[in-house]
Amino acid sequence: MGNCCERLGPQKNTYMRVSLPAVCFVWQIAMIILFGVFIRYGKESEARWVEYRHNNNLTDLDNDFYFRYPSFQDVHVMIFVGFGFLMTFLKRYSYGGVGFNFLIASFGLQWALLMQGWFHSLDLDTGKIYIGVENIINADFCCAGSLIAFGALLGKVSPVQLMVVTLFGITLFAVEEYIILELLHVSLINQSNQISFTSERVFPDVLLLLQCRDAGGSMIIHCFGGYYGLAISWVLYRPNIHQSKHLNGSNYHSDLFAMIGTLFLWMFWPSFNGAIADHGDGQHRAFINTYIALASSVLTAVALSSMFHKRGKLDMVHIQNATLAGGVAMGTSAEFMITPYGSLIVGFCMGIISTFGYVFVTPFLEKTLKLQDTCGIHNLHAVPGMLGGFLGAVVAAAASEDVYGKEGLIHVFDKEGKYANRGMGTQGGYQAAGTCVAIAFGLVGGAIVGLILKIPIWGDAADDHCFDDEAYWELPEEEEEILPPVLEYNNHMIHKSQDIAESSFCAEQS
Amino acid sequence: MGNCCERLGPQKNTYMRVSLPAVCFVWQIAMIILFGVFIRYGKESEARWVEYRHNNNLTDLDNDFYFRYPSFQDVHVMIFVGFGFLMTFLKRYSYGGVGFNFLIASFGLQWALLMQGWFHSLDLDTGKIYIGVENIINADFCCAGSLIAFGALLGKVSPVQLMVVTLFGITLFAVEEYIILELLHVSLINQSNQISFTSERVFPDVLLLLQCRDAGGSMIIHCFGGYYGLAISWVLYRPNIHQSKHLNGSNYHSDLFAMIGTLFLWMFWPSFNGAIADHGDGQHRAFINTYIALASSVLTAVALSSMFHKRGKLDMVHIQNATLAGGVAMGTSAEFMITPYGSLIVGFCMGIISTFGYVFVTPFLEKTLKLQDTCGIHNLHAVPGMLGGFLGAVVAAAASEDVYGKEGLIHVFDKEGKYANRGMGTQGGYQAAGTCVAIAFGLVGGAIVGLILKIPIWGDAADDHCFDDEAYWELPEEEEEILPPVLEYNNHMIHKSQDIAESSFCAEQS
Amino acid sequence: MGNCCERLGPQKNTYMRVSLPAVCFVWQIAMIILFGVFIRYGKESEARWVEYRHNNNLTDLDNDFYFRYPSFQDVHVMIFVGFGFLMTFLKRYSYGGVGFNFLIASFGLQWALLMQGWFHSLDLDTGKIYIGVENIINADFCCAGSLIAFGALLGKVSPVQLMVVTLFGITLFAVEEYIILELLHVSLINQSNQISFTSERVFPDVLLLLQCRDAGGSMIIHCFGGYYGLAISWVLYRPNIHQSKHLNGSNYHSDLFAMIGTLFLWMFWPSFNGAIADHGDGQHRAFINTYIALASSVLTAVALSSMFHKRGKLDMVHIQNATLAGGVAMGTSAEFMITPYGSLIVGFCMGIISTFGYVFVTPFLEKTLKLQDTCGIHNLHAVPGMLGGFLGAVVAAAASEDVYGKEGLIHVFDKEGKYANRGMGTQGGYQAAGTCVAIAFGLVGGAIVGLILKIPIWGDAADDHCFDDEAYWELPEEEEEILPPVLEYNNHMIHKSQDIAESSFCAEQS
Repeated sequence: MGNCCERLGPQKNTYMRVSLPAVCFVWQIAMIILFGVFIRYGKESEARWVEYRHNNNLTDLDNDFYFRYPSFQDVHVMIFVGFGFLMTFLKRYSYGGVGFNFLIASFGLQWALLMQGWFHSLDLDTGKIYIGVENIINADFCCAGSLIAFGALLGKVSPVQLMVVTLFGITLFAVEEYIILELLHVSLINQSNQISFTSERVFPDVLLLLQCRDAGGSMIIHCFGGYYGLAISWVLYRPNIHQSKHLNGSNYHSDLFAMIGTLFLWMFWPSFNGAIADHGDGQHRAFINTYIALASSVLTAVALSSMFHKRGKLDMVHIQNATLAGGVAMGTSAEFMITPYGSLIVGFCMGIISTFGYVFVTPFLEKTLKLQDTCGIHNLHAVPGMLGGFLGAVVAAAASEDVYGKEGLIHVFDKEGKYANRGMGTQGGYQAAGTCVAIAFGLVGGAIVGLILKIPIWGDAADDHCFDDEAYWELPEEEEEILPPVLEYNNHMIHKSQDIAESSFCAEQS
Repeated sequence: MGNCCERLGPQKNTYMRVSLPAVCFVWQIAMIILFGVFIRYGKESEARWVEYRHNNNLTDLDNDFYFRYPSFQDVHVMIFVGFGFLMTFLKRYSYGGVGFNFLIASFGLQWALLMQGWFHSLDLDTGKIYIGVENIINADFCCAGSLIAFGALLGKVSPVQLMVVTLFGITLFAVEEYIILELLHVSLINQSNQISFTSERVFPDVLLLLQCRDAGGSMIIHCFGGYYGLAISWVLYRPNIHQSKHLNGSNYHSDLFAMIGTLFLWMFWPSFNGAIADHGDGQHRAFINTYIALASSVLTAVALSSMFHKRGKLDMVHIQNATLAGGVAMGTSAEFMITPYGSLIVGFCMGIISTFGYVFVTPFLEKTLKLQDTCGIHNLHAVPGMLGGFLGAVVAAAASEDVYGKEGLIHVFDKEGKYANRGMGTQGGYQAAGTCVAIAFGLVGGAIVGLILKIPIWGDAADDHCFDDEAYWELPEEEEEILPPVLEYNNHMIHKSQDIAESSFCAEQS
Repeated sequence: MGNCCERLGPQKNTYMRVSLPAVCFVWQIAMIILFGVFIRYGKESEARWVEYRHNNNLTDLDNDFYFRYPSFQDVHVMIFVGFGFLMTFLKRYSYGGVGFNFLIASFGLQWALLMQGWFHSLDLDTGKIYIGVENIINADFCCAGSLIAFGALLGKVSPVQLMVVTLFGITLFAVEEYIILELLHVSLINQSNQISFTSERVFPDVLLLLQCRDAGGSMIIHCFGGYYGLAISWVLYRPNIHQSKHLNGSNYHSDLFAMIGTLFLWMFWPSFNGAIADHGDGQHRAFINTYIALASSVLTAVALSSMFHKRGKLDMVHIQNATLAGGVAMGTSAEFMITPYGSLIVGFCMGIISTFGYVFVTPFLEKTLKLQDTCGIHNLHAVPGMLGGFLGAVVAAAASEDVYGKEGLIHVFDKEGKYANRGMGTQGGYQAAGTCVAIAFGLVGGAIVGLILKIPIWGDAADDHCFDDEAYWELPEEEEEILPPVLEYNNHMIHKSQDIAESSFCAEQS
């Protein structure tokens, strides 16, 4: 890069030798201190499990680890390889895509263990958070919200800004999740499997009734994360980003790297939607529904991609993204009895809506609303997540004992204790309200975080240096390697024949 | 691509703006209707499982989901990342390789759920197909047959043709599987774990005796899929394909992408062969045997690759493909007591046979039989699958109570009911006959499908535009990005000095 | 490659058309014979399991397969995709990185099944080794030691030499493991789950007391493997390797391929450290500790990478490697009660130490000790592994009934039989001694193997042809494809204007 002329110019704004190490060190040390004060092994992961198991007549297989670990590893792959490689599609921002994803997810999951722990797993008697495999899965889920927001900001912000986005994103996520849970009785976390050392809990009447109604996080993860990222990007509007236009695109191999991300997301989405669903039929059904919906999305995404091209050709952007929309929209409903053909219909519609969004809505939003959305998260997360939330409301409202069975209805919707008599229509209403809360949190929180990021201390690149790894990465000098003889020869030629060339190629480049 | 001159010429034949969307929409809508009529959740994935579990004194862990889900996800990775990336090896057809694989597998698995359901899981009382994790695994398996066929056709057919190949491939697969099952008593599906709502079944005396004798699908998947693809390719012979010869090869990075596919196939093949084997020792043994056979294949593939090169160098084609032949050939025998050294010997021979095939047989077939086989599926699937089928026959015929134990022999070969007295020699004979049925189905079915695909309405590319993503994909303009200054300079030079260059490089290119 | 002039010159030394096939065939045939004599299915993987299960009132889920298989597949991915793609970072040795990794791991795992079987699983009554999923996991672990050594030698040795490195590496590993186990009472293998056909074992009093104290192999795998590779590389010092300096580096896409390896290693390291830990809380805790430590390593690796660059930019070498150091160092301690914040501190320190090593120690070692370490395994495996071993000693010495509970302490440290009264301080001392044994085995064994490899019969490349796939791989002619018109034009120009160019670019290149 830049071997024949300094094509990027001086990058006075992107110096982060002080800020990035400072942020990483301070936050990591803070994590150590907070973990030291709060985090302890849960009953199923500490050495006394042997005694507990004996006393309660359990076997090792009753350890929640064996129910959830395979799903967890799939989710983990989605977070780091899925999101990470999906964001390598830019021709010169692949390092940033996969590398910053790695950085912020690694920070985010630590902070998420704390934030979610305080809200959901804190034992008031001991003041400790007891963690197990389910907390770990939820921490990965929580990161997903911030990684989605990263998609809208890709190539336009500095890693320090991304750390700030993640810090606030995780915080907002945990609060949002808690509000939806407590006030509206829609829960991401099913804590019935969590064994604490005391029988009393923070809000015993609520916690005893926790229900698993957004297992795949359509509203809590995708809807929130999508609008959070869009709001930040809207505040950070860059009027002259067209100066980096030549780098805001893919090349042949970067699109193939992105397909690695797409496929791992697509394949493991059933695990994502089923990871914290109920043991047994809950996980089984969440997995089947998501599998079916995703397959349907692929066909309609391909169909629309071809229809919208003047010569019927397929666009990699649609194949990489819109094929996943069915999984997003099934997040809430996957564990319900939505029926297999219902799942197919959801995937069918989402593939269409998402591809339509990439072709028409994103350009429209950029022109009219000044909303720059690098990855198009509006079409993949925000809208499908919102629709998935409302879909979940409808499916919940339509649930009946005829379909679920008496015990099944109680089990799926945790209709126990003081919620035992809540009607399904009421439940549907609460689910819809939960979706609105997620949108509101995303938009308001994102706007505030965006304003914080406008303070000119964060080291983001100028408008003409966006989408370029040169700003933050030590890059290999590549051309000399791929084409050494010809290039060196050309350089000779170039220096020899400046008078032949009518215009400077350096000038043409910028 | 094509940035300095229209190097591909007008592609009047590959316009698919009408046909591809039409096919996708029609078939996806058909799927929705058929799913609505036929497909329902199985007992283990529907909400009444809670009641069923209570009534039958089961725990959540008895749900088949926990036995098969980790294997399933491995199989899923093989289908989408394994096959998909293995087919990215062509330098300019990588989008087509991974993208069309994604499309047809997504369609195929839906159609497979229906076809296999009608033949194997239809409940005559209710007229419904009840699905669970095992149906999903079988649907992925079923797709594998068509994806193998895709390997022979890679770069030469349109996506619409591939949809047709898949539609018929899945159909033929399900019929073939059923015939082998009913008439010959060799079954891919062990339905003993499937709980239906009625005790009566379509063919109760047969279904009660279903046996798991081709768990990894050497004959049903690989042998059938291989010959199916070869027959289609033979009918679609393109006499002038040498005009695209310059694109029928790899480059440095496309071969690395293909290695992603190879390694995920190789690593997860033990899961493939064990995914629907018997719980307990069956899955355990299938996994060990496949693991060992694959390791052995790698060494002999490397040895022959080096031997066959005049300077002893290794060929990526062999490393990418022949290393997998041991897994193909173990498909039938993996769950038998073939012994660990038996597995090593199988892998040893298959690595040799497959590499030999790539070096000598494929060129020979192309010259003498006019058989163009892009990926060499003849050497990786057709022949190893056929040999694996016959190997399974021999191993089954040699089975005895001494080795398997009395209960073990009954369990492994499901010797119950009216088949309880069938001798092992007879069983071996039936297995061999099953392999022949698979070959016949592949050849005859493939020839018919090939004739259908010869109708000039499918939008396939001309002989001089094969192996080129340009026909079906909107490609990024890449060169201008990688080498902007030099290229632009060169373009200047080129336009300025047409008189210096004696021959047009455009002419040279085509 | 080499399309315009033979840029690599005659490679008279790297001809391996005889040696490589000979080695592969001889060793594979030896494996078949030895497997035939020694290896049999274990109780849980043979057909008599059905009877055994009935007689012992077990269910299929009690088969160890279901406890360990998901972790195994993760480990398998680490060995083949993780290590394999991590080593693709060199711009022109990516085939060798992933291909030779594939070859030697496939050979190594077979040899490891035998070597580890003889030392740990041999039934003296029958003279057979009975294998199951745990043996398979250990075989993969055993390969890891040799693959680590490969990292130091990458680009400088022939595949035949790598086979020798693996043969001796596996052998030394098994002996080292056994010595540490028998003499020092620190065991990699927990055989309590292994069911043999006789009740008597080789060293019954020892085997009954086998303890799982290096479950993730900080000392046995990483420390040994690291020093083994470094010692070999030190003996094979190449004084003129600067002649290949232009190829000893990455390019943009090779670094992205390496990130695939990094991420799969990083994501699945929890499975690595927990794969053979105790069922239940042991696996659960090993997984949580490793997950946390790895997240912490990422932040400090990023921080130091930025700090050490004069403009604060990140270096891909550090992101690819130092982020993993926390997982290496947690190998021994992961299953102990090190506490979550303890894990964070370990990851914190290891990220710093490892990045510091890449920036300062590796160049220092190369200058002063003549130690050429291509991948920097000193910083990723040798030092973190050694520190992890000593850390394990400290954590073991600090273990108490207060923290572990009475049963827990016995369970985690297998304090039974004649070791029941051993104090924890003594245990810590033995652990530290075990680490020293691992270092000694690595250094002495590596030096001897290095001397063997100095014999000039192995076909390694000359100093000016290192880091180049050209020597051992048939490479596609790439440049002509990427830039056909311009290149051909350039070639024209070049031939036409030799008089213009003052220096031959071929001369410049070499």
